[in-house]
Parts: sequence; structure tokens; C-alpha cells
Amino acid sequence: MTRGDGIFESATVRDGVIHSEDRHLHRFARSAAMLDLPEPDLEVYRAATRAAVAALDVPPGTEAYVKYCLSRGDEELIDAGPLGWAYATEAGDFSRARTEGVSVVLLDRGYAKTVPETSPWLLAGAKTLAYAVNRAAVREAVRRGAQDVVFTTPDGYLLEGPTSTLVLRFGEVLVTPLPEVGVLPGTTQEDLFASLDELGLRGEERDVRVPELAEADAAWLMSSVRLAAPINAVDGAPMAVDRELTGRINELLQSRSH
Amino acid sequence: MTRGDGIFESATVRDGVIHSEDRHLHRFARSAAMLDLPEPDLEVYRAATRAAVAALDVPPGTEAYVKYCLSRGDEELIDAGPLGWAYATEAGDFSRARTEGVSVVLLDRGYAKTVPETSPWLLAGAKTLAYAVNRAAVREAVRRGAQDVVFTTPDGYLLEGPTSTLVLRFGEVLVTPLPEVGVLPGTTQEDLFASLDELGLRGEERDVRVPELAEADAAWLMSSVRLAAPINAVDGAPMAVDRELTGRINELLQSRSH
Repeated sequence: MTRGDGIFESATVRDGVIHSEDRHLHRFARSAAMLDLPEPDLEVYRAATRAAVAALDVPPGTEAYVKYCLSRGDEELIDAGPLGWAYATEAGDFSRARTEGVSVVLLDRGYAKTVPETSPWLLAGAKTLAYAVNRAAVREAVRRGAQDVVFTTPDGYLLEGPTSTLVLRFGEVLVTPLPEVGVLPGTTQEDLFASLDELGLRGEERDVRVPELAEADAAWLMSSVRLAAPINAVDGAPMAVDRELTGRINELLQSRSH
Repeated sequence: MTRGDGIFESATVRDGVIHSEDRHLHRFARSAAMLDLPEPDLEVYRAATRAAVAALDVPPGTEAYVKYCLSRGDEELIDAGPLGWAYATEAGDFSRARTEGVSVVLLDRGYAKTVPETSPWLLAGAKTLAYAVNRAAVREAVRRGAQDVVFTTPDGYLLEGPTSTLVLRFGEVLVTPLPEVGVLPGTTQEDLFASLDELGLRGEERDVRVPELAEADAAWLMSSVRLAAPINAVDGAPMAVDRELTGRINELLQSRSH
């Protein structure tokens, strides 16, 4: 744990139900493979996280989250092996971010969009315990008077937020960057894209260039616990919030039964 | 500790003495500033690490190390604040690496050498607890049949090892990359460079291009605990080990009285 040499997932919990459980377990196994960790026993994690959720003592309707963790283990105890754990706790109140939105700054993540293929040891797109850079980027955003970050590549592509997936709307098409550019596949974005028929929209995964954010009809940072937070400003320039669609997206996400 | 959002130092300990103690404390404070952590109280760390060392129960001459850590604290306990700790433990046996040397592969670290200036949120050159990429790079080296790594920039400069400083010899000049390119200032390299008169050599900090590694008369990866490990092969091509000078460097480092 003093190396950030491990992986995690955070899933939202409402009324005892872990949302997107299978997607989180799938992505957890994917991150383990990227870090050469042993394949996690997903049934053990399923049981552990459900036990953690069952032990939560919160009123009905309370938003909570459950965390899945797997570390390589204590490096001073060579034979101790990997260490996994799970816990559940009450979530913060993100209702304001889900309606008013968040202001973002664009920050270069330093890696070209080809690194997942050329340099897999950089772990781009793995959900590791090494989040120091993600945290430093949010502090830089706050320093600049904003609340969150959209990472970019040095060659001008949009990537993701430090803890969220970027989704843009162009007319009736929702667009998100391809996972191949080194972003984390978004469990919340995937749930949304699987239900776009209900919203009369369609989805597209493709490379997205930086100027497209200003050209989009709307944009969101999507994540498991905060859900869809509309972007209301980019580098200080206001961006229109699609309140009606945002509300329908968050209702759809909150109504998930698994 | 599930975010890698903190900093550390590892200093070598011999016969109760912490080597390069002031350099480690200085670099610890530098990393704290880079991560917007509160300024660590160095006298408290000095006392804590010395207490940890005093509690070590090892025979005279045993190599040990002491670790200084500072984390941002428990993110679920908002007001808990930063958490610092220190511990000491016996070191492994690095005598073979110090004489026979280590084989390395060159791996791209993905960041241009200008990122410390353009993108300080990438924390290049800070000693953080987020070492997942450093660990993944060493696993990639092992996969390629080597033991260690020299990181490079996409634009062709040499940087450092995942846990060490690169030093090259050209005739009577020892060369190491400038800290400004995003490498960690090396406490062991600094100690060596402060004593080069004794070896009849002089030191130089400058940009070093990738082909210079093959052209050098000798090269080492230098770190606090392993000390000077000569590089004996680069990407499978053998490199001459300067056994005599390596021995003198390691003797000089081991004879440090503080």
C-alpha cells in the first residue's frame, strides 16, 4: 500500500443494490491482468462486497458506495502474496454537481494516445491505486478556479476526467473517446449507452479532438457515484447545460435494478 | 493509502547511522511541496527515523534501511489530515548487483522532458507513493530477460531508473541527467559527486541523449540501498563493467559517516 501497486473499483449502492456490479467485476479483472496481478476470484469479491453492503446501516434511499481493492501485498513479507479487501460507506451529496454541473479545465496528461499499445507498462487505462497524479490534477483545477479536469493528450485529443468518463452530445449522437487511447472504460457510460434507445439517442466511440468540446451541444463527466455531471464551463468559458437531458440520464442511471 | 497520494524516502542504515540523512530530509520536503502536502516537520522525522533505527536489532555491519512516509490521510475522515510514519528494516543482499552489475532495457516513460515545467500536476520528479508504473516497468524488464530499466523520453533522452539515478562515465567525467527533465534528484549520486576529487573525476549535470548510453565508458544505476550497480547490458547488448571504479565508488559510499 506504500507503492500504489494494486487496483480498485468503486460502485454505487442504493437500497442494498450494487449498480453495474458485473461491469465493475469485469473491469476489476481487466485491471488485474494489466498489472500482472493474479486473476481475482470474482465470486469472492461478489460475496465480500455484498456482505459489506449488507452491513451498511443507512436509511432507505441513502446513496452509498462499495470499494473493491486488490494490492500486490506487503513488499517486506515476500511470501505474503496479494491482499484483497472490500468496504462500503455512505456517499457524499452530489445533487448539485448533477444539476448545476461542474466547471473544468483542460490539462495535458503527458501521454500520446498511442501509449496503451506502444508502452503498456505505463498502465494507461488501468484503475490502479496510484492516483497521485489524478489528485494533483484536481488540485490544479481548484487553483485555476474550476472544480474538475478533462485530460488531453499532447497531440490534441480529449481523454477523460481523473475519476470520470467524458461524454459529448452532438445532436442525437452521444460520443465518448475510444478506450484504446488509454482511458478507463466507463461502467456508467456503458450503462447509459446500453439504454440510449429509451432516450431517442445513439452512441459512438471514437477519437475526439480538443476543439470538439467547445463545439458540442452538451458534455458530461460520468462516474459511478457522482453519476452524470454536466460540464458548465471549460477553462473559464461557459458551456450550456442540457438540464432536461441531464435529468433524464440521471433518472435512468438511478433506476438501475442491478 | 488507497490513492498513492503521499510521499516517501528510503535511506540506507549501517551501524545505526542513517546515510545522507540531510539530503533525504531535504528531498522529502521538496516532494511534499510538489504534492501540496503540508511542510513536514523535519525534526520530528529525524527523531522518528532515529528511534526506528535504534529499535533495529541486527548484528554490526548489517545493511538496513529506514523509510520516511507522509500520506494525505484517510479520505473518508475528512478532518483527519495528513498521516506520517517511519520504519526501519533489514535490507536485502545487493553485493552481486554492486559487482556483477545489472542488465537493463530502455523503456519510454511517455512524458516529454519539458513536463516538469509545462505540467507540474504530472508530479515528474516527486517521490510519491504511486509507484505502480515503476513496478510495471521492472516486470516488463524481467519479461524481456533483463533486471532493471532506464526510462527514456519520447523525444530521445535518458532519464533514470524506476528507483535509481543514472550516471555515465565519459573519460574522467561522470554525467547525470539534469533534475529539470523530471528525474528525482539522486541523494546517492549527489554524495558521490560531492566526493569526486577523491576519485580524480569531475561531475556534470546535462541532457543526455539515448545513444550516449552505448557510447559511454561505463554506466551505473545509483540508489540509497543498492548503491552503485554497474549496467552490464542494454537491451541485450553487453556493456563493459568498470569493476575497479565501481568498487571504489561503493567503498566511498559505504564509508559515509552520516
